[in-house]
Amino acid sequence: MRDSSARDVKGAILDAAETLLAGNGYKKMTIDDLAAEVGIGKGSVYLHFSSKEEIALSHIDRIIERLKVRLENIAARKASAGERLREMLIERVIFRFDSVQHYTQSLNDIFAKIRPSLLERRKRYFDEEARIFSALVAKGIESGEFARTNPRNAADALLVATNSLLPYSLSTQELGERPEIERRAATVANVLLKGMISRES
Amino acid sequence: MRDSSARDVKGAILDAAETLLAGNGYKKMTIDDLAAEVGIGKGSVYLHFSSKEEIALSHIDRIIERLKVRLENIAARKASAGERLREMLIERVIFRFDSVQHYTQSLNDIFAKIRPSLLERRKRYFDEEARIFSALVAKGIESGEFARTNPRNAADALLVATNSLLPYSLSTQELGERPEIERRAATVANVLLKGMISRES
Repeated sequence: MRDSSARDVKGAILDAAETLLAGNGYKKMTIDDLAAEVGIGKGSVYLHFSSKEEIALSHIDRIIERLKVRLENIAARKASAGERLREMLIERVIFRFDSVQHYTQSLNDIFAKIRPSLLERRKRYFDEEARIFSALVAKGIESGEFARTNPRNAADALLVATNSLLPYSLSTQELGERPEIERRAATVANVLLKGMISRES
Repeated sequence: MRDSSARDVKGAILDAAETLLAGNGYKKMTIDDLAAEVGIGKGSVYLHFSSKEEIALSHIDRIIERLKVRLENIAARKASAGERLREMLIERVIFRFDSVQHYTQSLNDIFAKIRPSLLERRKRYFDEEARIFSALVAKGIESGEFARTNPRNAADALLVATNSLLPYSLSTQELGERPEIERRAATVANVLLKGMISRES
């Protein structure tokens, strides 16, 4: 099997996982179901993934890879660094929100089962996102738009400040309230950029 | 039974829950164990709480009640509104951190079991905290220290921005890193108060 077709199978298994999560949910999803959905043998699934948990985590990995491309695209736009950061903060919230939108009911299930491994994994996600934010913060400092600060610490603070709006921390009800979540992300982004303290004081 | 002694029994059950959570953890804690620890009958436990989950949630309620007293105390201090808000933001993170410090190992357990009800409950916690923050933001606006804004929206943004540092969102490893969590809370608080955008620009 060439490398590209191995990637195709892996992708097809993750696509199947997405379909099944939207259907019967995580608890009822079996490796047999996944193999049947892709049209391959159970053994082939295990060639790529060691367990159901590993599939759920890889599925989340893929969402983050797609998000990173979108963040890079916004960072490359022509606009002030502040405007780009603001859009990137909203995007990291809303892109994840939209990615799990069709199976919000099974999210409680998934998060209950994989919480410890997911929390470990999130460190890597946040580190990768932080690099993209940090590069833009550095540019904003260089141009004089942002106050002098350590770009990586500032990037970490921006992520920490919006992390509680990611699906893991939202209740099932909140996962139905896209405009409300977007509004909260925008408000936090504004406060982070402008600060509470009056510029006249 | 007078009201005050009913409160005593309730408190004693919650104290017992804290002890047992630090010992064998949530999964192994039974109503029988709790009754034995308090020295009352199992039926008496059920007079106050309908289930083990209800006890875990009430235990968290009590932590929040104590936190609110501490936040009110900081809000009443003599210092700039900004300095008080900064300390309140760190306190809401660190007080919760310290409250669960002796049973971090069973937190994964607890959160996995009660995640949906806890997320619902958190709405009320955040609402109560937001009132305390909002009152101080309003004072800071009145005195000209803060830029004009809707105090409640600003308070909500301050809470959202520090919510990802609360125990529910921390991995077991992070729950061992008090100085690191305190540093992150302080950094976010600084960015929220001063903003990223340069005051000279």
